Amino acid sequence: MADSTLVITRDDALVLDANDDLAHFRGRFHIPNPGVVYLDGNSLGMPPKRTIERLREVYEDDWATGLIRSWDHWIDYPQRVGDVLAPLIGAAPGEVVVHDTTTMNVYQLVHAAIALRPGRRTIAISADDFPTDRYVVDGIANATGHRVQHGFDDLGDVAVCVRSVIDYRTAELVDVAAETARAHAAGALVVWDLSHAVGAIEIDLHACGVQLAIGCSYKFLNGGPGAPAWTYVAAELQPVIEQPIWGWFATVDQFAMGPTFQPRPDIARVLLGTPSILALAAAEVGIALSAEAGMGHIHAKGRSLTWFAIELCDQFGLPTPTPRDPDRRGNHVAIAVPNAKAIVQELAGRGIIFDFREPDIIRAGCSPLTTRFTDVYDGIAAVAGLATR
Amino acid sequence: MADSTLVITRDDALVLDANDDLAHFRGRFHIPNPGVVYLDGNSLGMPPKRTIERLREVYEDDWATGLIRSWDHWIDYPQRVGDVLAPLIGAAPGEVVVHDTTTMNVYQLVHAAIALRPGRRTIAISADDFPTDRYVVDGIANATGHRVQHGFDDLGDVAVCVRSVIDYRTAELVDVAAETARAHAAGALVVWDLSHAVGAIEIDLHACGVQLAIGCSYKFLNGGPGAPAWTYVAAELQPVIEQPIWGWFATVDQFAMGPTFQPRPDIARVLLGTPSILALAAAEVGIALSAEAGMGHIHAKGRSLTWFAIELCDQFGLPTPTPRDPDRRGNHVAIAVPNAKAIVQELAGRGIIFDFREPDIIRAGCSPLTTRFTDVYDGIAAVAGLATR
Repeated sequence: MADSTLVITRDDALVLDANDDLAHFRGRFHIPNPGVVYLDGNSLGMPPKRTIERLREVYEDDWATGLIRSWDHWIDYPQRVGDVLAPLIGAAPGEVVVHDTTTMNVYQLVHAAIALRPGRRTIAISADDFPTDRYVVDGIANATGHRVQHGFDDLGDVAVCVRSVIDYRTAELVDVAAETARAHAAGALVVWDLSHAVGAIEIDLHACGVQLAIGCSYKFLNGGPGAPAWTYVAAELQPVIEQPIWGWFATVDQFAMGPTFQPRPDIARVLLGTPSILALAAAEVGIALSAEAGMGHIHAKGRSLTWFAIELCDQFGLPTPTPRDPDRRGNHVAIAVPNAKAIVQELAGRGIIFDFREPDIIRAGCSPLTTRFTDVYDGIAAVAGLATR
Repeated sequence: MADSTLVITRDDALVLDANDDLAHFRGRFHIPNPGVVYLDGNSLGMPPKRTIERLREVYEDDWATGLIRSWDHWIDYPQRVGDVLAPLIGAAPGEVVVHDTTTMNVYQLVHAAIALRPGRRTIAISADDFPTDRYVVDGIANATGHRVQHGFDDLGDVAVCVRSVIDYRTAELVDVAAETARAHAAGALVVWDLSHAVGAIEIDLHACGVQLAIGCSYKFLNGGPGAPAWTYVAAELQPVIEQPIWGWFATVDQFAMGPTFQPRPDIARVLLGTPSILALAAAEVGIALSAEAGMGHIHAKGRSLTWFAIELCDQFGLPTPTPRDPDRRGNHVAIAVPNAKAIVQELAGRGIIFDFREPDIIRAGCSPLTTRFTDVYDGIAAVAGLATR
């Protein structure tokens, strides 16, 4: 295909970049090879420039200079970073804490939820959900004797639904408000996994009636590889939830080191052991950048990037299972082609970076603070040049 | 008291420092205020100089430059750092993995142990053990219906003993080999907590017959505030232990994202979710420094420092519950005085840093890679000047 026959050309991408209100945020990231086309910020966000400065501050001012005395202000760092994250998801201060991993946090909240629904013996999850969520649910069912149900049609015996807000393969966005209301009406709780939603789409957990949620901070939040995850518990549930791992960061009067565990009355009751301060510091920088840009602006740009990607897929004849309705998708576009894996490997060698998901999905991540429209153009055009149709 | 009347003087400390084979290791640490007398390396180790360089490398070379491709080598980083740690505790390569927190790791191994002893309904722990270990055991018992027994005299119904190698208050060192043999002979398993032992004393888990152990890396290993913990599972138990949290890092063929969790055959089956790479990198630097110095040398200096501290306690009339037999103590010395808490606070303001543990314990941590004999002298002399006797 010659460019002259195309409806969309690379010049269009340049125009979109020139008119992008968030374009300057890319300058806040450390990008040693700006020629790299990075379309995997949905898997690992890029490093903010501030992150390494912040790590040096923690190393120099807190650790080296303050030594053990720095625990006076580190001690509630998971809660403070949680408060930076809270407005990104429509949570109130004191409802979010940044800690541990999504695996761990799903485990805790599912346990807490089934304890609140003792008469119900089923945990519901989609058979297509992200592996660690499914595996954790299977492990809990194995231990407690609960039944695992794939799907959410019948919630009569369901204690808790475990659901991703955005499908990690197709980017399909669930109607969180409607599905939460339906579950609650049926007497079930819902643990929402926002890993692919947080920092990507504008979402108001309060307005959606969400009571329990978890997510990561290393994708669209740019918190660093394996950055700590987070837990959200709506204020009204905090006094009643019980979690199975009674760690010393969750007890009242932690340094009394008393004889018995007494869960704290607040969000800190979901904490476990001593958190990595370096990891939290890096996470905070990424989270704060998204807060500064504002989720309204981020989501708007995400819609434009994914719209542009879908238009290009159509133009190049690349099939995509990603919803065309912008209200029903997150910030990546899936391309389904038979030789997906080989394409991803071939392009990585050329500095055009997507990721691959079984069985035949190329994911084009559109991370609004770093992805350019030209990245989307160059990436999708490169896929088109290699795709078996 | 005039110095002329003392058996031990500060000059003696200077002589001991001058003859200290490990003294040069202090130069490998970043110590912006060398006048600070730091006697709390048993709670938070000092920062190695290399740590901030290593963080910058991970940030620059791996994260910024490699982007998602760096997961090709990050993916087994918990195992590789475990292999750096293994020789410090007499473990073989492939028997240690660095991950999560001691709280989390105790939870996992206790669960794994009780699953291996289905006929037994008791978990044994000391009522004086470190809080998070006791709380986690109480939480497990609450969930499974096991009984918690304080003490280890009768092991007839005990599935698993949870024991600290070194008492966090008195520094008393348990005879690990004898107690492990006694428990195994009685049909019980033992989960050893080495948090106050690793990087402090020379210990050979294989020679002691230890099968299950956990520990931290932020104390004597100087891995950073809240640095990841670790899990040791002897090779022979790896194929049979089952852990309750089925995370995607513990499954075979992780990126197949298949329908069911299949625990890996090796030590990685105790992993959970995506680990913090920044935290692991910092931990590795600290662990590698202890490996370079050698646990034989570290333990020898630890014995000398604690001997010196105990001699000074005697000289100044300060009571200590720490064992006088060097084979029965770890690398801190406890001073028990009625106004312990006030002393610790007063001295911290003067840059002489101990820590306090309820009800009346001042801990003088002797961290062999950073603590000078003059630190011990200055610290204990300062306590003596304030102690109510």
